[in-house]
Amino acid sequence: MTEPEINSSANPRIKSLVRLRTRRERDRTGRFLVEGYRELSRALEAGVKLEELYVARDLFLGDNEPELIDRASGAGAEIVEVAAEPFRKASYRERPEGLLGVARQFPASLAALDLTGTPLLLVAEGIEKPGNLGTMLRTADAAGANGVIVADPTTDPFNPNVVRASLGTLFTVPLAVADTEAVIATLRSARVSILAATPRGARPHHGVDLTGSVALVVGSEQYGLSARWLEAADERVVIRMPGPVDSLNAAMAAGILLFEAVRQREIG
Amino acid sequence: MTEPEINSSANPRIKSLVRLRTRRERDRTGRFLVEGYRELSRALEAGVKLEELYVARDLFLGDNEPELIDRASGAGAEIVEVAAEPFRKASYRERPEGLLGVARQFPASLAALDLTGTPLLLVAEGIEKPGNLGTMLRTADAAGANGVIVADPTTDPFNPNVVRASLGTLFTVPLAVADTEAVIATLRSARVSILAATPRGARPHHGVDLTGSVALVVGSEQYGLSARWLEAADERVVIRMPGPVDSLNAAMAAGILLFEAVRQREIG
Repeated sequence: MTEPEINSSANPRIKSLVRLRTRRERDRTGRFLVEGYRELSRALEAGVKLEELYVARDLFLGDNEPELIDRASGAGAEIVEVAAEPFRKASYRERPEGLLGVARQFPASLAALDLTGTPLLLVAEGIEKPGNLGTMLRTADAAGANGVIVADPTTDPFNPNVVRASLGTLFTVPLAVADTEAVIATLRSARVSILAATPRGARPHHGVDLTGSVALVVGSEQYGLSARWLEAADERVVIRMPGPVDSLNAAMAAGILLFEAVRQREIG
Repeated sequence: MTEPEINSSANPRIKSLVRLRTRRERDRTGRFLVEGYRELSRALEAGVKLEELYVARDLFLGDNEPELIDRASGAGAEIVEVAAEPFRKASYRERPEGLLGVARQFPASLAALDLTGTPLLLVAEGIEKPGNLGTMLRTADAAGANGVIVADPTTDPFNPNVVRASLGTLFTVPLAVADTEAVIATLRSARVSILAATPRGARPHHGVDLTGSVALVVGSEQYGLSARWLEAADERVVIRMPGPVDSLNAAMAAGILLFEAVRQREIG
């Protein structure tokens, strides 16, 4: 049995892990937290640079953790053994599984997106809730989207709640973060149609062709899309809601649009 | 200015509000919490029996609170003025708006659902997360579904997180809670088609007719649908996911199915 190197919650490394929950510390260090087997596994597969991996063997749930630790070590991560108590303090979860990594933030530039062929893109403007952004990433991944673009973000995609809600698809879906003008210019120069989802849309989302190069643009729940996006759109579409309350979660709206595109591409 | 009747967080009524966050207390008393203007407004419109309304005028955000208080009072609710500090203690929210109600739980029986015509129903089996159930209710409401049936619940629909995530649509969508055998018997006797969503479905969800009487059945994220539902289904359908990770949040899967039904009914 390996002896823990860290036995106290007062250890400075435990404190630095807790500080990484704040945006200020993430921005200052260029690092972020990745917790859990599935998330770490996807990060490693995607070539994300894992710098440190904190392990609490007493908290392991299964048998596959040692293999992950070997992979992390082989990829250059420092492995740090931690006793259960200080690990719980550092963990972001209610039921920690004994695996917490610190990774280097990766660039999320528009230029890195592959816009050849007939890409299906999701653009999210001004999303505030990390859980919503994480769910959008997960859903875009499932839909086989070629990229998620976060325009004018108020949420840091390296927020631990984004990593968690995305189930690690933050590392599998191509991601770009940029301001709205840069996004519009990039989409136009790549001849990608801009479809803005808005309650005042002229046509239902399923009444337009989503089989070509297309960016589906959704706004925040509170404010919807900005005037700039509505004006820049090649088409304004509405998700018609026959029900009395007619309000959808922003991530749900994104999922309904993405899977209508999947449907059209399957039958097309 | 009305003087608060409750000025201390140690007041027994504040403590009883906090206790209503537990299922045990909700089951024991048959009561539950409804917080926020929108949620309370929808509860009143739906005729939910509001027994008490706690108001902290210092926390009001807008001008429409007095009108809601009048409506609640007119419907028989006791209005209790609370100082800001004890209200914050009782509130379930990060940013309390000064309105917290206690309502009587209403029956959610299968027999009360209207299954005439060509109803569109959502059946959710074994959903564990209150946020997921709330999002399903909100999405079913938007889709104009004729009912949401919770089969074999592990989550109490009167959980404050369900009320919150549903934005109060818990009160607008017809809701039934029952065990799986009773649900299957009811659907069969009303000649409602049972469509089970499963990764091992034979046909894509958009390849089947959703314009007739239909119940869309989704399982929990962790376990999927039980063998009983798969066996009872008239059709097993798959939401095809072209992406690498191919996993959808349970509420997202429900929304994609519901809005495919909406699409078919619109163009049908």
